[in-house]
Amino acid sequence: MKNNSIASSVDGDRLWQRHLEMATFGPSENGGSTRLALTKEDIDGRLRLAEWAAKRGFKVFLDGIGNMFVRREGTNPTLPPVMTGSHLDTQPQGGRFDGVFGVLAGFEVLEALEDTRTATQHPIEVAVWTNEEGARFWPGCMGSKVFADPNKLQPMHASKDINGISVHSSLAQLFLAFPTTPRRAVGFPVASYVEAHIEQGPILEAEKKIIGIVTGIQGTRRFRVEVEGFQGHAGTVPAELRKDAVRASVNMIAKLQDFAYAADSRVRFTVGRILVEPNAPAVIPGRVTFTIDFRHPELSVLNEVGDQIETICAQNAAGCKFKVNEIARTNPTDFKGLIPDLIEDVSQKLQLSRMRVYSGAGHDAENLAMLCPAGMIFVPCENGISHNEKENVEPDHLKAGARVLADVILALAKLVEPLYAKRD
Amino acid sequence: MKNNSIASSVDGDRLWQRHLEMATFGPSENGGSTRLALTKEDIDGRLRLAEWAAKRGFKVFLDGIGNMFVRREGTNPTLPPVMTGSHLDTQPQGGRFDGVFGVLAGFEVLEALEDTRTATQHPIEVAVWTNEEGARFWPGCMGSKVFADPNKLQPMHASKDINGISVHSSLAQLFLAFPTTPRRAVGFPVASYVEAHIEQGPILEAEKKIIGIVTGIQGTRRFRVEVEGFQGHAGTVPAELRKDAVRASVNMIAKLQDFAYAADSRVRFTVGRILVEPNAPAVIPGRVTFTIDFRHPELSVLNEVGDQIETICAQNAAGCKFKVNEIARTNPTDFKGLIPDLIEDVSQKLQLSRMRVYSGAGHDAENLAMLCPAGMIFVPCENGISHNEKENVEPDHLKAGARVLADVILALAKLVEPLYAKRD
Repeated sequence: MKNNSIASSVDGDRLWQRHLEMATFGPSENGGSTRLALTKEDIDGRLRLAEWAAKRGFKVFLDGIGNMFVRREGTNPTLPPVMTGSHLDTQPQGGRFDGVFGVLAGFEVLEALEDTRTATQHPIEVAVWTNEEGARFWPGCMGSKVFADPNKLQPMHASKDINGISVHSSLAQLFLAFPTTPRRAVGFPVASYVEAHIEQGPILEAEKKIIGIVTGIQGTRRFRVEVEGFQGHAGTVPAELRKDAVRASVNMIAKLQDFAYAADSRVRFTVGRILVEPNAPAVIPGRVTFTIDFRHPELSVLNEVGDQIETICAQNAAGCKFKVNEIARTNPTDFKGLIPDLIEDVSQKLQLSRMRVYSGAGHDAENLAMLCPAGMIFVPCENGISHNEKENVEPDHLKAGARVLADVILALAKLVEPLYAKRD
Repeated sequence: MKNNSIASSVDGDRLWQRHLEMATFGPSENGGSTRLALTKEDIDGRLRLAEWAAKRGFKVFLDGIGNMFVRREGTNPTLPPVMTGSHLDTQPQGGRFDGVFGVLAGFEVLEALEDTRTATQHPIEVAVWTNEEGARFWPGCMGSKVFADPNKLQPMHASKDINGISVHSSLAQLFLAFPTTPRRAVGFPVASYVEAHIEQGPILEAEKKIIGIVTGIQGTRRFRVEVEGFQGHAGTVPAELRKDAVRASVNMIAKLQDFAYAADSRVRFTVGRILVEPNAPAVIPGRVTFTIDFRHPELSVLNEVGDQIETICAQNAAGCKFKVNEIARTNPTDFKGLIPDLIEDVSQKLQLSRMRVYSGAGHDAENLAMLCPAGMIFVPCENGISHNEKENVEPDHLKAGARVLADVILALAKLVEPLYAKRD
């Protein structure tokens, strides 16, 4: 086992300290992180990662949507890289591990390889995907979406945040901060992709398993609904003359929630953002915009429920105009074959408790799965809480996940025999 | 009639031009105004009024809540002033006439008196009440509330806007802009109060009347409801484990609206502001705050419906915690006797069509009515539209309202015989 394992060289303390250090960029009030995509905090976090990479002699690249790649060269540089990674952006008042773990575990693998002077045939790259969370710019998984389909680059550049700032102009800030970093074209061949992540759900903890072998990711449909009423004085306009955009919207949302959750217990239906205009207490609202995040493991339910949104809005519009825009759609992803089996095999050899799990959360791996063999490794998070400052993970579980990732990557990137001699 | 009327000296063109000039402070995109209380725009508008006052030799004063008074001296300066006025702050994307008309009509009266060198026994003051709209700071009619009850000064100073900026610190900006303007204590004796205003409703227009003699103002109860759920990941947390603050809130609001509007056709019930936290599409909202503006002419309905809000929220909280805070309350106001009769009498003498109307909107006059004889003069607004950039008023109707106001004020402030000789 020694010759095809570097798991024992994974340094759990170093990995934990790097998490704490990354959390210093955009610390939130109650111990979490607010590091929205392409903000100063996000850019500063990436700069720190680039510093760490430079110290180890790893190359860093950026592509046209701001995806960042840390590369450890292979003995055959013409081979496509074996890739791992995740994202460094967070939700507002989000956690310190969501995404961060996948990037830092990947970086730890590179360091463990370097520490042991282990050579691989394939180059190995750690990707930092841009705007996975979709909290600042719609849609989420933006960087990996563009990577999988470069035709999406221009439309994504035009996406704007809540203050009207575009991805394009935010990327200019990123590139300004990395003046000498080489730029790559968007999208290139990848040999295989493995992403480590916290589970963001309660199952591993409940089942007392440390490693989740991810079998798939549920599909997602995201909508933005715009409701247009008529702004007026809260004291004077009688009920029958009102076109109250809030009244229409709350009825729409209430009915949409009831309808969606009636489908089955696997439905996840969330209205996470509501914007009211002018949002003044004594004014009948003239306009409301709200988002819908709807997820399900089955394509048929995604279609049947999602396609009713327009009808339900129409039934509750009460004289207001409305428009339902589908902003993003991802069909359910299946991880099959090579990678999940390899994760299972490595976990067994490392004597880590494990189980197959299905992902409720979307991940960049769903886009990479369109390009190459792909899979994910989950570790438990406390009480299944994520997208919350209270998000917490055991340091030992981070280490275990990184150990599995290390040997999976080593197997995929192909060890070069014999091992280099260790320094000292 | 000549000897006790200055209506013919009211200059409709000057009044109209002053409206256009005031609308240059905080112009909104579609021809309205956004001049929120104690913002730079509001302060700049007040500075312009002070310039106009200085040119005519009128004194200007400020009190501790930022109310501004433009004073034309009487022959007996020890008499309490006859007061008119209204407000210069607007709703976001509000109109150019709401409030502004009352201030500028009052100022036009002072100018007409000055032009005709007419002396009055009482001083006459035009008040600019602070934060009538309640759009930036809760509650509305803040300046006149404090004027009527100086005990409210300290609590109102602590009120904060949506960005956490207090009334107190915003007032510092106002006082900085008026470094040499004398300060008055809050609240002082007033002989009588008459406020001109646009109707903000459709009745005068429908009835083809130019002057509305206001008989009363409906009562208002304002609430802020805070709903606390548990923030989580939109993709992972199953329905039965969610505490979704938006889902609870939309059910509360939908049920509250249905309940309130069932009471009778005079109910005005508006949820004008909703704030969602963290307001990100892929996050189950952890917190929602919404406002309720509930108005009715009858105290009993205000009590019966308003007192059920807590119960209805409880029935729809779905596991979330919530708190209902009553922010402000104004009982219905009756304008009776002297002032409405005087408005009727003057309108008749000026041969202006007129009718008695009830006010759906709240006004500063409701607070002055607690201190002295008070009343209001309405003029029609186009299609009854207000709190909207489309708000529009006929210049001739503004002039007619100012003419009535002039003679009402003249009667209250007591003409000194004989008239001063006109210049030239």
